[in-house]
Amino acid sequence: MSATILVINPNSNQAVTDGLDAALHGFRHPGGPKIECVTLAEGPFGIESQLDSDAVALPLARLVQARDDASAYILACYSDPGLDACRSVTRKPVFGIQEAGALSAMARADRFGVVAISDRSILRHRLHLRRMGVLDRLAGERALNISVDESARGEGTFARLLDIGALLIGDGAEALVLGCAGLARHRAPLQARLGVPVIDPTQAAVAMALGAVLADG
Amino acid sequence: MSATILVINPNSNQAVTDGLDAALHGFRHPGGPKIECVTLAEGPFGIESQLDSDAVALPLARLVQARDDASAYILACYSDPGLDACRSVTRKPVFGIQEAGALSAMARADRFGVVAISDRSILRHRLHLRRMGVLDRLAGERALNISVDESARGEGTFARLLDIGALLIGDGAEALVLGCAGLARHRAPLQARLGVPVIDPTQAAVAMALGAVLADG
Amino acid sequence: MSATILVINPNSNQAVTDGLDAALHGFRHPGGPKIECVTLAEGPFGIESQLDSDAVALPLARLVQARDDASAYILACYSDPGLDACRSVTRKPVFGIQEAGALSAMARADRFGVVAISDRSILRHRLHLRRMGVLDRLAGERALNISVDESARGEGTFARLLDIGALLIGDGAEALVLGCAGLARHRAPLQARLGVPVIDPTQAAVAMALGAVLADG
Amino acid sequence: MSATILVINPNSNQAVTDGLDAALHGFRHPGGPKIECVTLAEGPFGIESQLDSDAVALPLARLVQARDDASAYILACYSDPGLDACRSVTRKPVFGIQEAGALSAMARADRFGVVAISDRSILRHRLHLRRMGVLDRLAGERALNISVDESARGEGTFARLLDIGALLIGDGAEALVLGCAGLARHRAPLQARLGVPVIDPTQAAVAMALGAVLADG
Amino acid sequence: MSATILVINPNSNQAVTDGLDAALHGFRHPGGPKIECVTLAEGPFGIESQLDSDAVALPLARLVQARDDASAYILACYSDPGLDACRSVTRKPVFGIQEAGALSAMARADRFGVVAISDRSILRHRLHLRRMGVLDRLAGERALNISVDESARGEGTFARLLDIGALLIGDGAEALVLGCAGLARHRAPLQARLGVPVIDPTQAAVAMALGAVLADG
Amino acid sequence: MSATILVINPNSNQAVTDGLDAALHGFRHPGGPKIECVTLAEGPFGIESQLDSDAVALPLARLVQARDDASAYILACYSDPGLDACRSVTRKPVFGIQEAGALSAMARADRFGVVAISDRSILRHRLHLRRMGVLDRLAGERALNISVDESARGEGTFARLLDIGALLIGDGAEALVLGCAGLARHRAPLQARLGVPVIDPTQAAVAMALGAVLADG
Repeated sequence: MSATILVINPNSNQAVTDGLDAALHGFRHPGGPKIECVTLAEGPFGIESQLDSDAVALPLARLVQARDDASAYILACYSDPGLDACRSVTRKPVFGIQEAGALSAMARADRFGVVAISDRSILRHRLHLRRMGVLDRLAGERALNISVDESARGEGTFARLLDIGALLIGDGAEALVLGCAGLARHRAPLQARLGVPVIDPTQAAVAMALGAVLADG
Repeated sequence: MSATILVINPNSNQAVTDGLDAALHGFRHPGGPKIECVTLAEGPFGIESQLDSDAVALPLARLVQARDDASAYILACYSDPGLDACRSVTRKPVFGIQEAGALSAMARADRFGVVAISDRSILRHRLHLRRMGVLDRLAGERALNISVDESARGEGTFARLLDIGALLIGDGAEALVLGCAGLARHRAPLQARLGVPVIDPTQAAVAMALGAVLADG
Repeated sequence: MSATILVINPNSNQAVTDGLDAALHGFRHPGGPKIECVTLAEGPFGIESQLDSDAVALPLARLVQARDDASAYILACYSDPGLDACRSVTRKPVFGIQEAGALSAMARADRFGVVAISDRSILRHRLHLRRMGVLDRLAGERALNISVDESARGEGTFARLLDIGALLIGDGAEALVLGCAGLARHRAPLQARLGVPVIDPTQAAVAMALGAVLADG
Repeated sequence: MSATILVINPNSNQAVTDGLDAALHGFRHPGGPKIECVTLAEGPFGIESQLDSDAVALPLARLVQARDDASAYILACYSDPGLDACRSVTRKPVFGIQEAGALSAMARADRFGVVAISDRSILRHRLHLRRMGVLDRLAGERALNISVDESARGEGTFARLLDIGALLIGDGAEALVLGCAGLARHRAPLQARLGVPVIDPTQAAVAMALGAVLADG
Repeated sequence: MSATILVINPNSNQAVTDGLDAALHGFRHPGGPKIECVTLAEGPFGIESQLDSDAVALPLARLVQARDDASAYILACYSDPGLDACRSVTRKPVFGIQEAGALSAMARADRFGVVAISDRSILRHRLHLRRMGVLDRLAGERALNISVDESARGEGTFARLLDIGALLIGDGAEALVLGCAGLARHRAPLQARLGVPVIDPTQAAVAMALGAVLADG
Repeated sequence: MSATILVINPNSNQAVTDGLDAALHGFRHPGGPKIECVTLAEGPFGIESQLDSDAVALPLARLVQARDDASAYILACYSDPGLDACRSVTRKPVFGIQEAGALSAMARADRFGVVAISDRSILRHRLHLRRMGVLDRLAGERALNISVDESARGEGTFARLLDIGALLIGDGAEALVLGCAGLARHRAPLQARLGVPVIDPTQAAVAMALGAVLADG
């Protein structure tokens, strides 16, 4: 099968793209859809502000249009930047990882918690969850308060994840969503230590994209 | 990889199980998880009433316990019978196809419609969607009013699906969920004719299960 | 009048049935409906798990069918096991005590708290309240963490009830619901001590059943 | 037992009070609570406007204070006038019949319809149901468009009730609430003809009051 | 332009009316609408209870009717007493300051906090916000626990406002509403100190009234 | 007073800006804040698509930063483009006209209807109203299906507005919001003909901005 799932890293940090690529290794099989991770050249080095998020909407839509060979698209930034823009230029499935992460958590537990990178993104995420109509399923969101770049590289990240995850479980979370595209390598050990399902949102979105693409296969 | 996703048909109609098996063919790849479809021997020939739905809860939980070799479980009846029971006996992921179908539709469109088999199941589905907290995303649910067995075999089913689907789009549905495990072969042609995403809930659940299983791969 | 309200204890602990019977003494009047408390022979000794709850659905429905001489039915376990099953086999009123308890509390105060027997039942109760669409009226639910059997007999239960009740009032509860069929004898003293309405859910359900039955009288 | 449930007709139409009294005949039993129906002397002849409703709040509260011999109070006008006022002057239970009617319908069916007397009261009722947080359970409300006085006396009322009830069932109502204190005599025949539970709100409130009073018995 | 916005102080404390008048000084411009503040002679000295609130509904409606020369009306008590009554006697705009304050805060921030005068009013306010359908936007409400009269005069009020405001920000409030008509002079300094928008509800209502009146200009 | 309220037309059609300017004439008074209408040079000729809406977010934010002499900002396009972006670059009030229009309608009536320019914008508006948590107050939204440019100039627009407005009133709307910045001149005649409040969203936003600016005056 030649179908391609295009995973777009909206920031221009190739290390983040490489991390995505590695995190999705297990989703590739001989004969299965191709999962291709690309970097948005026009993106900022990290999407850490509202302006960063707004800045990538049109470049993302152009990339989706340019890559009309793909069968599904994944916007691999937890703020779901450009989601409406990309959906408006194609009838193929476009998944935002915040949406996919939250919806997948809802299939695993009643109330979920979100580990954000920074306090500054919590309001943005809350607005998106309310727009989805699923805010009542959120037990809480708490921030690591490190940069996206640090999250992809830093040593102390796992210890922070454990602390924040435990606080969210105390808030009532029965599953956790990693609120960033760059934390996938911590998913399995975090789940093992905390004893609740931990969702990597990019993996969740790729699974949904597989569902859409394979159904046509 | 030796992981198994166990898809359980809660009714005892082997033709339905065979249909499920065929519908999931595209989700199997060399080296990927095994997707095994089994029939619940204790199930009724079709789950068409509330009592049918309640009757299979414990047999399903026992089957889940007996098959602890599996990595994830899918309950392939749209009423999500036994979902709480099965989740209470394992820490592995258990997906109900109503939950998976609705959540997957929500990743594709704002408001979705559901095509039920029978008017008698609409109240049961509505209660479950409200329990999930996502009822505001439902544009409407309408019934084919045929039996589960007919849905898996009948000639006129596709014509009925087209009619009901068009009515739901008129209700505001921007995506459709097939509210039965036995309609998968109609998914692609229905989507082609109606021009909106059509979700087969068992495929949606298998995709989510792949996401959970492959992340550990 | 010969109308009978049938109160069914879904567990097989006769002491619990006897406690129900005593708690309903005040609801019986010459010429009024008969209030008959029966034990579900097939029930477990206590309904303490999801499986226990699912196991009694069909036996309860069969009992409702067998007792078609009754005019109304009450399922006297706070998890409302078998509620949908029983409603599907009769057009007469069937009351779940969780539903009746919560709705009655809502007629007395804006936000109510629930005293659960065990932490394990809190998720089950929350799902039912969300399904009812009334979760926003819940101030909180907290558990005694004693067994159903202990709740019907234990010495220290009242002291625990006082503590938990006070915490729930601190959570914002303006009324309390006893989240178990076996706590009725503590209702009046607890209300006297805490100064907010305390609802015994079986009594609440019997009152609603009286309303349904007497209206036809 | 000497407990008294005081049912207050907030309008000064004695015929309405007499109708209430007759409708509650079946709720009185030897040894049971006294159910006393009184007319608010200061009330207008019918509560047909917002000003009528506001005008009776303080007189109702004064009557509640004057009658501190009663154990529970019922405000028998579907707009629940003076409910907050009366609750602020006593710690004893005060039931509004709109609240009791809606909550009782919710114990019988998932979605209910309301038969209003007049289009002018529909907004007032909707605001109260939203305030209760239960508006999602309302299938619809439709008006007879007759006066309160006519509703207590008119010949053609039952035919109108049948028509409006059928329309509400078409809207999705699985139970009906009579949105007026003066329609009780139509309840049983309407239920018999329409085949869904029909709730008289004053009877529903009296049943809840019995529950509160008898629990202390 | 001769249009008049009539601001009605529902209590009979002229000092409160004078405070309103001073707080609205900046809203008056040559050629703009007249903003006239009047005292409800029939009102209590302060509206501190539910009965106080109910008692002014009809006098307010009569005043609105008597002053049909005005183009818009503002009910300057945070419990929005008589709002439905006044709206029922005129087709001109009638603004309650709780509604205007909450809605204006929602135009400035996602979640807002309310500073109440007294714990006794918090339930009343919550019921009104739920009736408006906007309770999910409330981060919290906390009380100063001083009298309305003190709030208009007291020395220590500002220090209390700072404390309570900081607690509400800790609750998640991104804007604050002063839950009383008599706190306007503290608005600007409180906003300066706390760093979040602080809304005086009477000013918010006057701004909305200006919008309604000037659009016709 | 030298305070300036900056009203930004995000499209580059100067005729629309001139229409805004004319519609706001009545809001200017000697000594009052200056109300300045400007055209976003970088904007498209009309904002008719999702891409148009996303394209102006950053230019709007830059304009807000460049005009830090202003005291409040209004984004005069009903899709509220760039609202989050602009709010992230200033602590001064930024009003989106969709938010201001909806919130102002909620101060005038319980349920409101929206007259959209085009069917294509209805989903975008619904998502924003759900994000605001006020979707339950929407009676319906219906489109004129004319272009923004036509709406500012066309002859037949008023007749269409009458038709669509009447349909929305039939849907239950008790007030209407004009879902476009270019329809202000039709507001007063439409309100006169339909008999319900009609809100021009730019006027509503300017009123809220006056409230914020004058409070500091």
